[in-house]
Amino acid sequence: MPGNRFGETLQLVSFGESHGAAVGGVLDGYPPGVVIDHEFITTQLSRRRPGQSAIASSRNESDAVEFLSGIFEGKTTGTPIAFVIRNRDARPSDYENVSSLYRPSHAGFTYMKKYGLADHRGGGRASARETAVRVVAGSLAKILLRQTDIRVIAYTTCIGHIRLDQYRDFPSEETVDKSLVRCPDAVVSQQMIDYLEKMKAEKDSTGGVIECRIAGCPPGLGEPVFSKINADLAAAMMSINAATGFETGTGFGSAAMRGSQHNDPFVVDNDKIRTLTNNSGGIQGGLTNGNEVIFRVAFKPASGIGRTQKTVDHKGREVEFTLEGRHDPCVVPRAVPVVESMAALVVADHWLRDLKYQFFRK
Amino acid sequence: MPGNRFGETLQLVSFGESHGAAVGGVLDGYPPGVVIDHEFITTQLSRRRPGQSAIASSRNESDAVEFLSGIFEGKTTGTPIAFVIRNRDARPSDYENVSSLYRPSHAGFTYMKKYGLADHRGGGRASARETAVRVVAGSLAKILLRQTDIRVIAYTTCIGHIRLDQYRDFPSEETVDKSLVRCPDAVVSQQMIDYLEKMKAEKDSTGGVIECRIAGCPPGLGEPVFSKINADLAAAMMSINAATGFETGTGFGSAAMRGSQHNDPFVVDNDKIRTLTNNSGGIQGGLTNGNEVIFRVAFKPASGIGRTQKTVDHKGREVEFTLEGRHDPCVVPRAVPVVESMAALVVADHWLRDLKYQFFRK
Amino acid sequence: MPGNRFGETLQLVSFGESHGAAVGGVLDGYPPGVVIDHEFITTQLSRRRPGQSAIASSRNESDAVEFLSGIFEGKTTGTPIAFVIRNRDARPSDYENVSSLYRPSHAGFTYMKKYGLADHRGGGRASARETAVRVVAGSLAKILLRQTDIRVIAYTTCIGHIRLDQYRDFPSEETVDKSLVRCPDAVVSQQMIDYLEKMKAEKDSTGGVIECRIAGCPPGLGEPVFSKINADLAAAMMSINAATGFETGTGFGSAAMRGSQHNDPFVVDNDKIRTLTNNSGGIQGGLTNGNEVIFRVAFKPASGIGRTQKTVDHKGREVEFTLEGRHDPCVVPRAVPVVESMAALVVADHWLRDLKYQFFRK
Amino acid sequence: MPGNRFGETLQLVSFGESHGAAVGGVLDGYPPGVVIDHEFITTQLSRRRPGQSAIASSRNESDAVEFLSGIFEGKTTGTPIAFVIRNRDARPSDYENVSSLYRPSHAGFTYMKKYGLADHRGGGRASARETAVRVVAGSLAKILLRQTDIRVIAYTTCIGHIRLDQYRDFPSEETVDKSLVRCPDAVVSQQMIDYLEKMKAEKDSTGGVIECRIAGCPPGLGEPVFSKINADLAAAMMSINAATGFETGTGFGSAAMRGSQHNDPFVVDNDKIRTLTNNSGGIQGGLTNGNEVIFRVAFKPASGIGRTQKTVDHKGREVEFTLEGRHDPCVVPRAVPVVESMAALVVADHWLRDLKYQFFRK
Repeated sequence: MPGNRFGETLQLVSFGESHGAAVGGVLDGYPPGVVIDHEFITTQLSRRRPGQSAIASSRNESDAVEFLSGIFEGKTTGTPIAFVIRNRDARPSDYENVSSLYRPSHAGFTYMKKYGLADHRGGGRASARETAVRVVAGSLAKILLRQTDIRVIAYTTCIGHIRLDQYRDFPSEETVDKSLVRCPDAVVSQQMIDYLEKMKAEKDSTGGVIECRIAGCPPGLGEPVFSKINADLAAAMMSINAATGFETGTGFGSAAMRGSQHNDPFVVDNDKIRTLTNNSGGIQGGLTNGNEVIFRVAFKPASGIGRTQKTVDHKGREVEFTLEGRHDPCVVPRAVPVVESMAALVVADHWLRDLKYQFFRK
Repeated sequence: MPGNRFGETLQLVSFGESHGAAVGGVLDGYPPGVVIDHEFITTQLSRRRPGQSAIASSRNESDAVEFLSGIFEGKTTGTPIAFVIRNRDARPSDYENVSSLYRPSHAGFTYMKKYGLADHRGGGRASARETAVRVVAGSLAKILLRQTDIRVIAYTTCIGHIRLDQYRDFPSEETVDKSLVRCPDAVVSQQMIDYLEKMKAEKDSTGGVIECRIAGCPPGLGEPVFSKINADLAAAMMSINAATGFETGTGFGSAAMRGSQHNDPFVVDNDKIRTLTNNSGGIQGGLTNGNEVIFRVAFKPASGIGRTQKTVDHKGREVEFTLEGRHDPCVVPRAVPVVESMAALVVADHWLRDLKYQFFRK
Repeated sequence: MPGNRFGETLQLVSFGESHGAAVGGVLDGYPPGVVIDHEFITTQLSRRRPGQSAIASSRNESDAVEFLSGIFEGKTTGTPIAFVIRNRDARPSDYENVSSLYRPSHAGFTYMKKYGLADHRGGGRASARETAVRVVAGSLAKILLRQTDIRVIAYTTCIGHIRLDQYRDFPSEETVDKSLVRCPDAVVSQQMIDYLEKMKAEKDSTGGVIECRIAGCPPGLGEPVFSKINADLAAAMMSINAATGFETGTGFGSAAMRGSQHNDPFVVDNDKIRTLTNNSGGIQGGLTNGNEVIFRVAFKPASGIGRTQKTVDHKGREVEFTLEGRHDPCVVPRAVPVVESMAALVVADHWLRDLKYQFFRK
Repeated sequence: MPGNRFGETLQLVSFGESHGAAVGGVLDGYPPGVVIDHEFITTQLSRRRPGQSAIASSRNESDAVEFLSGIFEGKTTGTPIAFVIRNRDARPSDYENVSSLYRPSHAGFTYMKKYGLADHRGGGRASARETAVRVVAGSLAKILLRQTDIRVIAYTTCIGHIRLDQYRDFPSEETVDKSLVRCPDAVVSQQMIDYLEKMKAEKDSTGGVIECRIAGCPPGLGEPVFSKINADLAAAMMSINAATGFETGTGFGSAAMRGSQHNDPFVVDNDKIRTLTNNSGGIQGGLTNGNEVIFRVAFKPASGIGRTQKTVDHKGREVEFTLEGRHDPCVVPRAVPVVESMAALVVADHWLRDLKYQFFRK
């Protein structure tokens, strides 16, 4: 009934507030004998971290992760993997002037209504800091997926009105990370950066879209009818802070398509059956079909902006306020590793769930 | 680990194949003492049923639901409510000519890969017939929600390239159902009907979009951070057959918005705090904020079309085929009560999950 | 949050009241391609059925099970298996004279307190009729376990003060069923029968103990630390009507033993490691050790007796009553297949849960 | 699918190995606004700690618990409560001489079989050190239960052949803790202590029994038919290290009773209905009946003894060994707070699960 658990066979429990002692998680169901690549995890964490560039929030956290259990002599043991990331650069004072009011489009109001109290220290559990936990768990999932052909990559395809229409290649992480905004097309990337600088100068923010692709999925991953792979991916993505939309394959665009145009015909290719096109985004009937899984996630503009705004305080008085503190003009570039991480968790979970069928298919 | 369960406190298990003996479900966690309105359930089922009009599939099923448990003398008892809908008009022979091949964008291939066997009788578990179970359970959820102010309505906002741009009123079910395509705007509705007739004549199909609105939600429904109300709604909607996209509030459109434009300022209205605008679609930090919850679901064009298509058969030979049988040119009008049902299940579940907080908030 | 679900990877949902339309269940997670032996299921159901002998309740139900889904052409499909057993011989009138009072040690009072209403028709969900669902699901689990070396058998070791001290052989179902009370020792069996006839004559009832043994378990089944195999078996057994105790291996007797006496030394036997003794009942650290799993379940005397008893009615008045209707003097003989069924469900679930480790152990 | 999660509405995830960095847990679903009594938690932890007396293991750990989240300004926030207990006095060298062999009745063999690897540092996840996590979570549950009339107490009723036959009073924690073996009867307590000293001198160990009583339970706690309160208590208790038996009320003794003797007649007492006797141990139909819940848990003799034993090493050779290190002659006295903690977790979970019914009962 509580909501901080994710996944079935590979199960993450997440904890921690942005300005408390730490954030962290417990990943249970992780198979034994897997060599843990700590450097990889650190790298992934640093991809999510604020303070990476002029266009991002300047909060500077080293995000050092400590593993407390489940790993012995460099390998997983099959027992729960607990990890903690201490909050070092917490500056609750940044939030003092807003601690007694409800910021527009911020979770302070709804948390107060649900829990009957407010943590004024910068968002508490609703802060994007929570996503660091997702990245650690997702990195562990990616390490597990190294035992398979499955590869996950995400990148920015839209920031504000700047769009990358289509990107055919399956880009490497290096290609994506060459861009400050994690857009693999250098020209579009620069337009996005220019736009973000404009937003920053205007004390405003903007939204965007991330595309994620999962290559190498064996056919059959997913569990009808409520734990279809697209349903689980949707929940995973919509649980990320600021996410406002999710679509697979042709997504919302498929509304205007015809069946004769959208259907993906099967063909035989090197004695293997595959689809000629991939309008379905690699999913049919809620199960992977062997083709690339493709989906996109929309994000709203960051709610924390430097402009003066109107709102209501805890005593029910209408007030004006101006937010101090450190804020990104756009959450999208930093959300790229979070999207990848959640995708890796979903796919690793379903791959583990599917292993039992191997016994019966043979 | 299996996937046919939905919800936490109000928990549905769904079963049944399209051309087997029956489809049905068990709804556990339903509170005791609720008067069951059987006529309402029958009406909702008939809204989903094929064979309602010239533009829909002509399969004719009475969809009579039998309740086996959990109801005594017209009231729920608090024990599991089991229900069964017999399959009466099953015509497996319709599918004989396609029983040995993989239909494009149909679940036959992925089910074969997952389970190692195929049910050639018209989609089995992947058939839209399964959604009848969702409608019965969703109707029970709607009946439960009568004890609250929460009301759920859905309607068609897009079929093919025909779009209803904005609909400000909260329409009644009667208004929605006056339209054959369940679009509450009479003019747009007629355009959609014309377009569907064109599709039918051309043996083709089209996609569309459904908008759903939930009025009267108390603030605070949802469970951070993985069972946020938007995450659970996303999973619910993307688990519906043919769904390809989900968005809340301004959704994908929020990518191009600025924070100063997207943020919903709080105002005081009759001593109550509410937001002035509703770009957030009634959700902040994954919790309802008291405003209307608004989301949209995109559907791809139905994969079953009357045109000759290319594909591969079970022996791996590329073949051509023409589909016989009964098929809708667009799933959207019939999906409207399914979207409503899944929304009602999610909201009723979260309302029940939230009841315990009342004890601690007071 | 509701309680009618059992198991993780192999998951049963149970429904139905004793005097409603039907009892039944949905078993999800059952692997595809398994040939279903309907005759076996019918036989198991008849083992549980009342009305089998002079010493049992004379309620006569054919207990015909109808499968609604998940089986096609005699084999499982991997989709949920739903089944229904109609209530044919319901005689609610038997309970009319007790419908307005709380019977001693009967669930009527507690159900009224929980749900705020009472089903006066003979126990509703608390009736032993519910265990028929467990037997169908357990029989499906036993059929699944035919793909392994795992075999489950249970038998009566105590009725009243008559005890079977030790039974070394692993008896066949035939041997067990030769005895009306399901005690594999013919001499003790006759003593038990005599005692039950005495109880019946005296309009009284008695308790008893069932022992269950699971042979052929591979080592390693169980999931530390809360889903240990003994923890899951304990929950399964204590959820059976009238169960009052559960123990594994030497059980309560181990309290008085010394470690030097209780410890099971490992030995090498045909190049395989096994334990010399089995005081642990085949379980160490919550995981099977490859030896026979042995446990016992205690049952209280049936609460429904023919003698005049004192109690309180729904209006809070102290009253006397005499129960009419059909009642067993001892639930134990009929509970034997229920104990086996729950054991089979637990072991099949853990065997399926353990399959994923095979990929990593190799 | 993994097994380190416990509870539904109040949900614990446990992690950590005995000789790794730390043990700890995350408790999700804990209501907001509850004042946390840290001193109480420390006291409870010290009750479980080894090294308390001459008759217990001399491992000396301060067991300082650090809370990482979910508590702000001394009160719970409704978000997950994470806590960590560092392992300070880990002496893996104690286990060096047994690191390459399978100790009799120890989990080393079964863990090796399940996970394909062994943690030779003193039991890993199977160590009793894991129960410290249960005590922290259980103490939080007890603190929550202060908002109700529910009180939980456990005490030792048997060590070896020394038995406390009946204890009528509901003893205070002080009374229980006055005894080194946690037996509230001073005479029996001394006999137990003498027996344990004898065991220690003889380098042997013994088993025992703990009785637990829960007063003040409202009627109706429990969720039929698989999450009955006795089923959940059974799973909770049998998941504790070395537990071999569980019984409620008259338990195994009820096998030899008659219904006319065992049935608990209802009487009216001060306008309230209660049972005259309590053979049912406060539970009917799997629901609390308002009377005291009473159950007992049997524990086997500790497997770690100082005597030379025979066994098999990892290479499959039969060997003799003598265990060094710190070992209790009996786990029972230290298991008392663990039994209480698990009982408190079960009851708090069910109390929270039951809150929603209040809305419908009124």
